Amino acid sequence: MNPRMTVTRKADVVWEKDLAHGNGRVKLGSNAIPEFPVTWASRIEQPGGKTSPEELLAAAQAACYAMALSATLARRNKPPEKLNVSAECTFDDKALKVTTMSINVTGKVPGVEKSEFETAANEAEKICPVANAIRNNVKITLSASLS
Amino acid sequence: MNPRMTVTRKADVVWEKDLAHGNGRVKLGSNAIPEFPVTWASRIEQPGGKTSPEELLAAAQAACYAMALSATLARRNKPPEKLNVSAECTFDDKALKVTTMSINVTGKVPGVEKSEFETAANEAEKICPVANAIRNNVKITLSASLS
Repeated sequence: MNPRMTVTRKADVVWEKDLAHGNGRVKLGSNAIPEFPVTWASRIEQPGGKTSPEELLAAAQAACYAMALSATLARRNKPPEKLNVSAECTFDDKALKVTTMSINVTGKVPGVEKSEFETAANEAEKICPVANAIRNNVKITLSASLS
Repeated sequence: MNPRMTVTRKADVVWEKDLAHGNGRVKLGSNAIPEFPVTWASRIEQPGGKTSPEELLAAAQAACYAMALSATLARRNKPPEKLNVSAECTFDDKALKVTTMSINVTGKVPGVEKSEFETAANEAEKICPVANAIRNNVKITLSASLS
């Protein structure tokens, strides 16, 4: 019997003191990135060189969507030369809610017409694991064009 | 009229080539972290010093939950001295689905009993914006104890 393949990824945060005046330090299980700070102020005011849950969510979304579209294009035998993906994540700090995720991609893809690229981009949004993790809770929009 | 407060956070990924052999470079809008790489192999096999969408999602979850619990405790006039939060995110790479998010917290909170800490921890899970962004799509579990 072929066991189900799953992978687990982990992150740790040490938080000290209250929300307004406290601060957290984030450590990734992979150690890909040295420990980095988060604060409430940097989340809802100016980042001031600090990241935030919404920025990390945007990074997860952009990386995941880039992989999904790369795979979708390769299945059409048209692998991309380059995809520039950006993801913008909006946080409503009154409602305390992640409200929108806006994905924008421009692609350099040999042999692909505009309409086929748009079709592939929409397919990729539908299979993208991170988009599916936030679907129906966060409004996801997609904009795709060839460079 | 008081305008609605929203903040937008952004990340960019440049992806080159197909899924199996290509690679991406992630850049955060805040510049909090220098550009870092992602690959499909490091996502589904060993990280090998690279991060992944699931690890970034775990980091977003851990940071957001730490803030939520810090706020919940402060509202009870029992701000935490320290919270150690870890989040584990599981990816099923056959189903291409983020399946579980497991949050574990141990707290050092002056004047708080076990049962009150557990109540606050459960409240925090319910208001946590990142947990609410993935709710009903990803199975979220919570474990809370005093240190």
